[in-house]
Amino acid sequence: MPEISERGKIMPASPIRKLVPLCNDAIARGLKVYRLNIGQPDVPTPQEGLDALKNITRNVLEYSPSEGLLSLRKKLQEYYHRFRIDVDVDDIIVTTGGSEAVLFAFMACLDPGDEIIVPEPAYANYMAFAISAGAKIVTVPSSIEEGFALPPVEKFEELITPKTKGILICNPNNPTGYLYTMKEMLQIRDLVKKYDLFLFSDEVYREFCYTGAPYISAFHLPGIEEQVVLIDSVSKRYNECGIRVGAIITKHEELKKNVMKFCQARLSPPLLGQIVAEASIDASSEYMLQTYNEYVERRKFLIDGLNRIPGCYSPIPMGAFYTVVSLPVDDADKFCEWCLKEFEFEGATIFMAPASGFYTTPGMGRNEVRMAYILNKTELGHALKVLAAALKAYPGHTI
Amino acid sequence: MPEISERGKIMPASPIRKLVPLCNDAIARGLKVYRLNIGQPDVPTPQEGLDALKNITRNVLEYSPSEGLLSLRKKLQEYYHRFRIDVDVDDIIVTTGGSEAVLFAFMACLDPGDEIIVPEPAYANYMAFAISAGAKIVTVPSSIEEGFALPPVEKFEELITPKTKGILICNPNNPTGYLYTMKEMLQIRDLVKKYDLFLFSDEVYREFCYTGAPYISAFHLPGIEEQVVLIDSVSKRYNECGIRVGAIITKHEELKKNVMKFCQARLSPPLLGQIVAEASIDASSEYMLQTYNEYVERRKFLIDGLNRIPGCYSPIPMGAFYTVVSLPVDDADKFCEWCLKEFEFEGATIFMAPASGFYTTPGMGRNEVRMAYILNKTELGHALKVLAAALKAYPGHTI
Repeated sequence: MPEISERGKIMPASPIRKLVPLCNDAIARGLKVYRLNIGQPDVPTPQEGLDALKNITRNVLEYSPSEGLLSLRKKLQEYYHRFRIDVDVDDIIVTTGGSEAVLFAFMACLDPGDEIIVPEPAYANYMAFAISAGAKIVTVPSSIEEGFALPPVEKFEELITPKTKGILICNPNNPTGYLYTMKEMLQIRDLVKKYDLFLFSDEVYREFCYTGAPYISAFHLPGIEEQVVLIDSVSKRYNECGIRVGAIITKHEELKKNVMKFCQARLSPPLLGQIVAEASIDASSEYMLQTYNEYVERRKFLIDGLNRIPGCYSPIPMGAFYTVVSLPVDDADKFCEWCLKEFEFEGATIFMAPASGFYTTPGMGRNEVRMAYILNKTELGHALKVLAAALKAYPGHTI
Repeated sequence: MPEISERGKIMPASPIRKLVPLCNDAIARGLKVYRLNIGQPDVPTPQEGLDALKNITRNVLEYSPSEGLLSLRKKLQEYYHRFRIDVDVDDIIVTTGGSEAVLFAFMACLDPGDEIIVPEPAYANYMAFAISAGAKIVTVPSSIEEGFALPPVEKFEELITPKTKGILICNPNNPTGYLYTMKEMLQIRDLVKKYDLFLFSDEVYREFCYTGAPYISAFHLPGIEEQVVLIDSVSKRYNECGIRVGAIITKHEELKKNVMKFCQARLSPPLLGQIVAEASIDASSEYMLQTYNEYVERRKFLIDGLNRIPGCYSPIPMGAFYTVVSLPVDDADKFCEWCLKEFEFEGATIFMAPASGFYTTPGMGRNEVRMAYILNKTELGHALKVLAAALKAYPGHTI
């Protein structure tokens, strides 16, 4: 039997994924499972997007251009302009979700052995895409004690080698909910400029900033305009994760051409998703505000509730719809597994993402989980009760 | 300014892509352009698929499972069964088009430096996906004189090294329209078995076999069931290229798990496309037969017409909807460019794919083009007239 690739063997299976079968088993046993493990919210997709599907009159669902529909790219340009991100239509290349945007950004910028520096905890799939590209992710730990602020920039600088090709940030951050300040962003800018690096900036949660502090896009930073590779996706802001529409935005002419080669090889991003995405950009300000307000309330409700549970601590996330919480447990991987496998409270249990999957430094995040506040407050309330009861009952609890 | 990746630099820009701006210019000049350059047919998508879109009632367009919707995978299982391809639902992993199926198959089977052997001319994007995976495509030339039959199996064997991990075939073939015989398939089987290789088999055109000769799937070959990696797509058979739904089918347990890691990293294939694909599998036999008959007629019409033009020669393609044609010209790249840039006949011109993009052996296919018979007969008739006139007028014609 022929051997599979080494690349695939070293790709870590996400700790969340390992728990999915246990979640399914729990459901099969008749339990209600509160799933705070993934960023799949329950808020509706904009009616404009859903209507666009009903209104499709074409009778051939043909390829779209490899760079995406021009009409969508124009809409995106207008959309970015609202956030003072001023780019040409030609700077915007539509991808199959933010996922493909990250993969193609890595493929087009990095060669095997190249390194990028990422603050951790970080979105676990960056690692998978780096492995796909043969590149290496080097992490700088941030800590829950510091509220997951950007680590001192010297910590980044220490890690720079001749192989370093870029820095990757996610802002607002998944999994921590941290929002980088102008001061932090300027520190990153200086580093990127000094060492002539790419700045990969995943800004898919920009609509969700809750504290009045400004959203600073990598494109707001003067002097590195051609070094920024912006990653975007419509999934989260219009709650249409399944349509698979994202974008790479870059002003680096040679990079654009390079990204296009990967786009042309896969022929076309999804036509139907693009039609929905384009219409969704016209979502009413009422829809956007209602969604925003919903997350604001859920955030307050969840974080207050968590911090009332003895031994639990969550910093207040400033953006996105996640938070990383420290729990009074010996090992969050074991605890999350135990919740699904052995625990129930009033016919229910809880599915959380162990934070270990978001760190590469061994041992970090050992007692942390990521929770997504993507359920309504009633459900979040039940989930909090289940969690409190689970922490009491769990044999490995530490208080 | 940071440097783009070497990987991207070495990825060849397709000669077809280079001609697209010239095609757009020709259209802007008011010319009618007969586009035989790509496999985007004009036949309608099945009504079942279009209706499924209108009937979507969900109000959240959420992620689908990373392996694809179970209901779609069950339908695909039934579909494959009709072709005596007997696989479990778990053997079927849904991908974002056949493109992603090829990419993930390579990523999960091949490491940098690994080699796969492919008969050429071959679908140009295999090369792009191999470069993405850091792998090397080694080609065995087939020739128009032999009707693009499988080259002697000894030619494959000569190229096998310790780095060889697989053989890739496309059957029925894009670009040649060749359909491999049982004898040829058994020769490939023997080689794959002897050297313990993967057999990557792209069979997206299986519905289009025109000569009464049987379609032999790689899964029909006894003794290598776990070495076969089948690539599939609904794009061509239901004419829904834009929905981006394909599949990897494998019985290799470890490979399945490995492919799933890449699938999980990109979260989900397109939900809307999967809904359309699932419904399209229920397309009526009338629809399938009508589409089939349409291609049968176009094929006869185009090939007869081509072979009547002095100096043109096309073997009769046995499947798919392409043919490779030799033309009485010095250089088909130049000729295709000239047609778009400098020629017109009765207000029209023609866009063909230079065959050079399908070969890696330098100089091969120099006077060949690929044509797709994806236009109706009236249009094909005009296109043939334009081609005949162009060949007369072209300064580099050789007869």
